[in-house]
Amino acid sequence: DRQRKHYICTTFQKFGSNVGGGWVEAQNSRGTVGLVPEDYIEVKTILIISFVFDLTSLYRALDEIRKLCGIIFSSVYSFDEEWDDDSDDGKSTGGYGGSQVEEGGTMQRAGGHSTMKLSLNKFPGFSKTPNPEVYLLTKHIAKGDERLPIYTGEVGPVWLYPQTQLDCVVADPKKGSKMYGLKSYIEYQVTPNTTNRPVNHRYKHFDWLYERLVEKFACALPIPCLPDKQVTGRFEEEFIKMRMERLQGWMSRMCRHPVISNSEVFQLFLNYRDEKEWKLGKRRAEKDEIVGVKIFSNIDPELPELDPAQVEQKYEMYSQFTRSMDNSVKELLAVGHLHWKRCTGPLQKEYRQIGKAFQNLSSVFNTSAYPRESTLTEALTATGKTYEEIAEIVAEQPKKDLHFLMETNLEYKGLLGCFPDTITVHKAAIDKVKEADHVVVMNKISQQDKLIMEKNLSTMSYALQAEMNHFHSNRIYDYNRLMQFYLEEQVKFYETIAEKLKKTLGQYTTM
Amino acid sequence: DRQRKHYICTTFQKFGSNVGGGWVEAQNSRGTVGLVPEDYIEVKTILIISFVFDLTSLYRALDEIRKLCGIIFSSVYSFDEEWDDDSDDGKSTGGYGGSQVEEGGTMQRAGGHSTMKLSLNKFPGFSKTPNPEVYLLTKHIAKGDERLPIYTGEVGPVWLYPQTQLDCVVADPKKGSKMYGLKSYIEYQVTPNTTNRPVNHRYKHFDWLYERLVEKFACALPIPCLPDKQVTGRFEEEFIKMRMERLQGWMSRMCRHPVISNSEVFQLFLNYRDEKEWKLGKRRAEKDEIVGVKIFSNIDPELPELDPAQVEQKYEMYSQFTRSMDNSVKELLAVGHLHWKRCTGPLQKEYRQIGKAFQNLSSVFNTSAYPRESTLTEALTATGKTYEEIAEIVAEQPKKDLHFLMETNLEYKGLLGCFPDTITVHKAAIDKVKEADHVVVMNKISQQDKLIMEKNLSTMSYALQAEMNHFHSNRIYDYNRLMQFYLEEQVKFYETIAEKLKKTLGQYTTM
Repeated sequence: DRQRKHYICTTFQKFGSNVGGGWVEAQNSRGTVGLVPEDYIEVKTILIISFVFDLTSLYRALDEIRKLCGIIFSSVYSFDEEWDDDSDDGKSTGGYGGSQVEEGGTMQRAGGHSTMKLSLNKFPGFSKTPNPEVYLLTKHIAKGDERLPIYTGEVGPVWLYPQTQLDCVVADPKKGSKMYGLKSYIEYQVTPNTTNRPVNHRYKHFDWLYERLVEKFACALPIPCLPDKQVTGRFEEEFIKMRMERLQGWMSRMCRHPVISNSEVFQLFLNYRDEKEWKLGKRRAEKDEIVGVKIFSNIDPELPELDPAQVEQKYEMYSQFTRSMDNSVKELLAVGHLHWKRCTGPLQKEYRQIGKAFQNLSSVFNTSAYPRESTLTEALTATGKTYEEIAEIVAEQPKKDLHFLMETNLEYKGLLGCFPDTITVHKAAIDKVKEADHVVVMNKISQQDKLIMEKNLSTMSYALQAEMNHFHSNRIYDYNRLMQFYLEEQVKFYETIAEKLKKTLGQYTTM
Repeated sequence: DRQRKHYICTTFQKFGSNVGGGWVEAQNSRGTVGLVPEDYIEVKTILIISFVFDLTSLYRALDEIRKLCGIIFSSVYSFDEEWDDDSDDGKSTGGYGGSQVEEGGTMQRAGGHSTMKLSLNKFPGFSKTPNPEVYLLTKHIAKGDERLPIYTGEVGPVWLYPQTQLDCVVADPKKGSKMYGLKSYIEYQVTPNTTNRPVNHRYKHFDWLYERLVEKFACALPIPCLPDKQVTGRFEEEFIKMRMERLQGWMSRMCRHPVISNSEVFQLFLNYRDEKEWKLGKRRAEKDEIVGVKIFSNIDPELPELDPAQVEQKYEMYSQFTRSMDNSVKELLAVGHLHWKRCTGPLQKEYRQIGKAFQNLSSVFNTSAYPRESTLTEALTATGKTYEEIAEIVAEQPKKDLHFLMETNLEYKGLLGCFPDTITVHKAAIDKVKEADHVVVMNKISQQDKLIMEKNLSTMSYALQAEMNHFHSNRIYDYNRLMQFYLEEQVKFYETIAEKLKKTLGQYTTM
């Protein structure tokens, strides 16, 4: 294994002489030619940055370069302390029923954002899908410190869960400014339940954390996207509240994950004591080498090895499940969106009209000069006012019940959008192991290598199973809570209206 | 008075030498020229009917002539025994939310039909509005038999109400046929509470009754139109049920009216013992001479005479009230129509979609192979089914509550549509009396005549007041009942849904 590490691809010949299945013919420094997995190749590139005094242009240039080069640029990443792609201008989306969301359209948040950044960059090499081969062929022993054990729980393979669950509160958004007031931003207070000591973070710090988590874990764990960074602006308070709520949701989900919550970078984010510790920790995290498929090296399932057929069967099941659930969640979001619009739009209007019509009739009756009028006109006016109240109750109701249902489903939509990327890595590994016999025959790898690959594939599968069991357990908890909350609020809604109507009914003369 | 009866207008000069205000210069058989009220003039016309063997064409021709000549033709009216403008074909309207009623449009029934036939024909002479002058100048004493007394009740001038209120049940529609089966029709059984003996009537008999009542009473009492005769057809049972319900409503309203219910023609309709009695009674009713403005001669208010200013004030108030209420009722019908459509259309669809979305999610969850799934999936399926039930409840609800609200308001729309015609007669009388001073000065009528006119105007006003008080009393009763019924059903509706949701909520695990 170590031997292979010496191959260095000196030209871009790997595309010319790609033998297929992620294998590349390459030459090492001593002139030896052989097959290497794509992901073993390091590309050496020198970037020359002409220093411009216009800082904004520089930031933009850096951003472009960063997008193009991904991880290569992680060493200049600390510059982004000065970036502000989170400045408080642009457009806002307040809810799901606002005029800015077009009918039948998808939600803004997690809409364009629903896949991890895994596919474009963040992984060594130029391969679009992280190639699991670098891991599959490694005969590794998980180190004690970063070891990620998998046990058999009641539901099957599970991660090691901590005794007390980490959680945090995101609160108290405050406006700050930089560069003599030229740039302003919102800082949130994040307080973990472990230390109870608040730390301050801007949106871009969350984004930085997100990128580190994707880099490090996304091959094994789907990392849900942050709430959309594009939307800011005019309805500032409402927007800040919504973003805070969503950051809270994201942080809680991360805290609940036994692997993520226990990671050094996540602990840094929650527990840093001062600016210095934060900056040092950041640099350390950015230089972390156990990223991409290498994360599987840390996984240590204390369980019997699975054969490739079992692995494939699990993969198929999870792939099917996450795709189906993605569709189902989108269906629920679409109908929820329509219902939200109907409640705040035509239904509110209609109940107001009904209310007005009863009140107008009452006003007319009031002009009759007939002596026995007052009981009816008073009752009719009260009925009209009740229907006007119902109009407002109907329009406010989505915020009370549908909001939480939509938010949770949006979170799940985001999460499910990350599964294909994670699952693709497993598919690639399964395919590699299937080809292994053929490669053994060609004497490109040894029979021993093949057995190592199968063992590692089993480990990957246990990681996926532990992750899916974590997902299922959370899903059942979340949807149970969600549905109960939704139904409780719906019951209250219908009971409130019934009560109001009963009260107004009492004002009529019994005959 | 009798002297004036001898004036006969031999030519159509009355239009050429109309001196205004309904006075016409005319010449009597002895050559004397003088002013006569328009309505004193009899027009002698001979109609020649060429007998055609095609009966249908004849009926149509007769109908046309009847429409043109009105009362002149009452002697041939008995021909209409063979007419069948109530044949069971054409279009149907089932409710208010059906596809055949376009959005925001008015209801079919009572839409085109909302004024009495009073303005086009049914009154002697060619004047468009029945001219009250024939009555105003008559020094009459109400006959004992047809006398219509007006008393002072708690609410002001009131008709004499019978000790027990007449009512009837319209039921048991049966198909009958005529002309060897060529014409078929529906016969309804009408059973008055007085005799408890059922009589059979076709729609066209109701229509005949309606025409007699308009002819006789419409100058003093607004006669609400029958349910629209145009709509029949395909959904026969539904249509017959709807028509029966509306005929029942119309008959009950007529029964409740102390003047109408006591009239000879109405009693005939309810109590005839055999075909012979019916036919004789019909002919007698058709030859009734106390029709149009002459009805006021029967009215006998046992109350102090009102001066013209008081009369005008009352007139203004009633005119304003009925117009305002007409608008208000139309507004309520329009919003009720919209609401009906929303409940049976988009709302039902949306709740079905919500139900489906929950059930689909449950189906997906069911495929997880996760061992702790069943409680949630069962609860989710139950929730989905509950929302599907709610969809049906929502769609059925208008039939339960809105239907009665719409029917009652349609009845009132029809009734209010008749008021302008009735009220116009009063306006004409007021104007005539205002001109009286001027006509006295011109020596066309005597001071004595003027006083008679004022007394008669007072009588007309008392009739209108009694009628308005009857209207108000019924209105308060009807709307009280209507609103109570509507709200009771609405309360039940919201409570039913709350109960169903509560039940499904109970299926989730408490956490």
